[in-house]
Amino acid sequence: MKHLLSTKNLTRDQAIEILDTADRMADVGQQSVKKLPALRGRTVVNLFFEDSTRTRISFETAAKRLSADVINFSAKGSSVSKGESLKDTAQTLMAMEADAVVIRHGASGAPQQLATTGWIDAAVLNAGDGKHEHPTQALLDAMTLREHRSKLAGTATTGTGLDGMHVVIAGDILHSRVARSNMWLLNTLGARVTFVAPPTLLPVGVEHWPARIVFDLDQALAQNPDAVMLLRVQRERMHAAFFPSEAEYARWWGLTPERLAALDAAGATTAIMHPGPMNRGLEISSVAADSPRSTVLRQVANGVSVRMACLYLLLTGDNSAAQVL
Amino acid sequence: MKHLLSTKNLTRDQAIEILDTADRMADVGQQSVKKLPALRGRTVVNLFFEDSTRTRISFETAAKRLSADVINFSAKGSSVSKGESLKDTAQTLMAMEADAVVIRHGASGAPQQLATTGWIDAAVLNAGDGKHEHPTQALLDAMTLREHRSKLAGTATTGTGLDGMHVVIAGDILHSRVARSNMWLLNTLGARVTFVAPPTLLPVGVEHWPARIVFDLDQALAQNPDAVMLLRVQRERMHAAFFPSEAEYARWWGLTPERLAALDAAGATTAIMHPGPMNRGLEISSVAADSPRSTVLRQVANGVSVRMACLYLLLTGDNSAAQVL
Amino acid sequence: MKHLLSTKNLTRDQAIEILDTADRMADVGQQSVKKLPALRGRTVVNLFFEDSTRTRISFETAAKRLSADVINFSAKGSSVSKGESLKDTAQTLMAMEADAVVIRHGASGAPQQLATTGWIDAAVLNAGDGKHEHPTQALLDAMTLREHRSKLAGTATTGTGLDGMHVVIAGDILHSRVARSNMWLLNTLGARVTFVAPPTLLPVGVEHWPARIVFDLDQALAQNPDAVMLLRVQRERMHAAFFPSEAEYARWWGLTPERLAALDAAGATTAIMHPGPMNRGLEISSVAADSPRSTVLRQVANGVSVRMACLYLLLTGDNSAAQVL
Repeated sequence: MKHLLSTKNLTRDQAIEILDTADRMADVGQQSVKKLPALRGRTVVNLFFEDSTRTRISFETAAKRLSADVINFSAKGSSVSKGESLKDTAQTLMAMEADAVVIRHGASGAPQQLATTGWIDAAVLNAGDGKHEHPTQALLDAMTLREHRSKLAGTATTGTGLDGMHVVIAGDILHSRVARSNMWLLNTLGARVTFVAPPTLLPVGVEHWPARIVFDLDQALAQNPDAVMLLRVQRERMHAAFFPSEAEYARWWGLTPERLAALDAAGATTAIMHPGPMNRGLEISSVAADSPRSTVLRQVANGVSVRMACLYLLLTGDNSAAQVL
Repeated sequence: MKHLLSTKNLTRDQAIEILDTADRMADVGQQSVKKLPALRGRTVVNLFFEDSTRTRISFETAAKRLSADVINFSAKGSSVSKGESLKDTAQTLMAMEADAVVIRHGASGAPQQLATTGWIDAAVLNAGDGKHEHPTQALLDAMTLREHRSKLAGTATTGTGLDGMHVVIAGDILHSRVARSNMWLLNTLGARVTFVAPPTLLPVGVEHWPARIVFDLDQALAQNPDAVMLLRVQRERMHAAFFPSEAEYARWWGLTPERLAALDAAGATTAIMHPGPMNRGLEISSVAADSPRSTVLRQVANGVSVRMACLYLLLTGDNSAAQVL
Repeated sequence: MKHLLSTKNLTRDQAIEILDTADRMADVGQQSVKKLPALRGRTVVNLFFEDSTRTRISFETAAKRLSADVINFSAKGSSVSKGESLKDTAQTLMAMEADAVVIRHGASGAPQQLATTGWIDAAVLNAGDGKHEHPTQALLDAMTLREHRSKLAGTATTGTGLDGMHVVIAGDILHSRVARSNMWLLNTLGARVTFVAPPTLLPVGVEHWPARIVFDLDQALAQNPDAVMLLRVQRERMHAAFFPSEAEYARWWGLTPERLAALDAAGATTAIMHPGPMNRGLEISSVAADSPRSTVLRQVANGVSVRMACLYLLLTGDNSAAQVL
């Protein structure tokens, strides 16, 4: 079986192969004819149980750029909402000869279930499952970090990991699949991770994870990390128990204009990352989002390249990265 | 005019031509490049006034596999919901040079109206209209029945009908377009049909239809039919007047584990069919749905092939099946 | 920058070039393979903040007929509904290397904002913004008017404007972007415009616009204009202050059977136009909508051709019309 379910189980070689392939795919987007024939006649199904226009159109763009046919299947108004089981939905797609299923699901583990129960033999790509993982997000972040280092050092990055880099991830770690996927992949690629969050937004057992925990964003930034990644605040989860107000959140955990100025004053080389969509003025100030440090748009661009690479490697199966569980 | 509106008016030769063509189309899905150039530059519009993700993506997959362009037009949020008439919607699509319109509508007869009033000269394919017909469903079921017989007999089926076969259709006959389309087509192809339903779920005048009526599922199954087709229970139609409860429904009209065991014990060759999506535990038990007798996934796969065949025959118009009313 | 934001700023030469190109594009829709390779490998994003199935599928059909890839982005259920700014949405699309963004937005000026703030360097096509403009609608109307004149005069129209033509636009001028875009373009092309509306449905400052104002539809029609364009009544805007009832509206401002009969009796050559979807029996009677004078379906057909022309000119940039602001 050939799936992309998590970053936790990716080997370093597999991850680097995806990144190297993504670098090559990025060139396609620069051509006037932004299209490769690689997946002509293959069908990619976007099976989205949760709305996510950005991730969906990134995968759709990636698949079309490889000449695949794309079928969008939103669970809303479908037989899923009439009570059909995930198994039956999956097998239906399978019977239609889908070659890849990109799944976004509210339940942690749904993509694993698709991939490992024998319901389906298409390639399964996890596009975000509950609080568990969002592996293509972590891969596009890694691509962006390689790019950041390359730009500063002026060296090529093909074949390299992120050895020695330091990434601060700030915000609601408890609910974030982005934080989890990044943590595993960054460790695999040789970077170290610092989580910055209030104790109430850290998961139980976080002390066993390969990340340092810090409760003070200024302290974390003072170390001149290679990047700081602000997690999206999900407002519906901002209970009064955690924060008195949005202003309070921004002050403690947001990348405020003051914090940006401090980075500048210190001559730090810290990149500012965000998975989007941003809550400007909350976890990230507009001045930070639009500053030269911001890699937010590079992350979006790299997202298409990384997804092209994953679809290409999984569906053409021409090398080791295709055996990723 | 060249449309697929019903199975009632299909001749035996036309139906067999569609099935034979579908058999050839099934090979396309087995290629690594699952694509034929036959409909390149043609536009197929999916005009869905009712949600039906499964049917929509089956037609979409079929059209794309033939290289057609597909436009999805959901009536929700469209000018239809602003009160535009079916006629104006149809003529709008026509003016855009649509080559085929696949229509799902809540009102019986809507596809006929599109096709026969001169509003439109695209091919019209009925994807389900009210309680009236769902012809591609019946055709994919017939394809599945031919396959079932071929597998048992080890003989080729090209050019053959379903002569001498016996199909039991169980459940809510009153509201089912699937039952109606199957009844007409099965008769045309030489099979005989038994309906099993409570008297309250039979339509007025059913005694004039070419089907035997039975009120006891066990009695119907005891005859070792070639297939039993369980209709989907539409829960919103399960009034207390008909059934006290879902458990009661399952016990009387569902393919329970006990009924499956009885088929096995009798050495029956009965296939278990369901148009999907299934209500597991209601009209069909999980053990039946997943048993080797189940053709549910073959039906889905054959659905794509049958729809490719219909689009191909109607749009290339190269033989008699293309004159189907 | 190369955008289509309004008709107000189109020069006569640019407008005529679009119309001439559209005439050539119309031939493509008559081929059995309705497809040109011109935009292969380009990505067109339909960014719709308001529902408009007709406009969306017209642009989608146009883009696919030019072999572009199309990504539909409906603001509903997207990060936009989670509060993302237009700027961030735009930049996200940009980062994905979209070549053209077709935008429909409820706020007047949103497309301009996209195009002129440096957020994006894709071509921006305004598909309707608030009460401001809907330029492709005016262009398709102009194409239809050229066609109308050509048919009566039996002469070719390539390279010509609409000099000396007279167009009556009737209804809710106050809220209509269609009226505004038509007024500017008709003037640029040498036609004159009469608005017919109750004083309550005229905007402040209308006396400075290049249109004559009349309060009596019969009087306007008595002049045998080349065309009368009925605007769609948006029922939610029909306040009691304006009209006592729909019947009252139809009687005063609708193209009733009586008014149609008067045109016929006078031997007028007036074409009857409507941007669709029509409220039959309100601003237009069915007999008028379906009469030989009606160009409603020609407008729809020309819509695809005009949108092909705009996408082609903006994306291939091979002549002056591509510099349209």
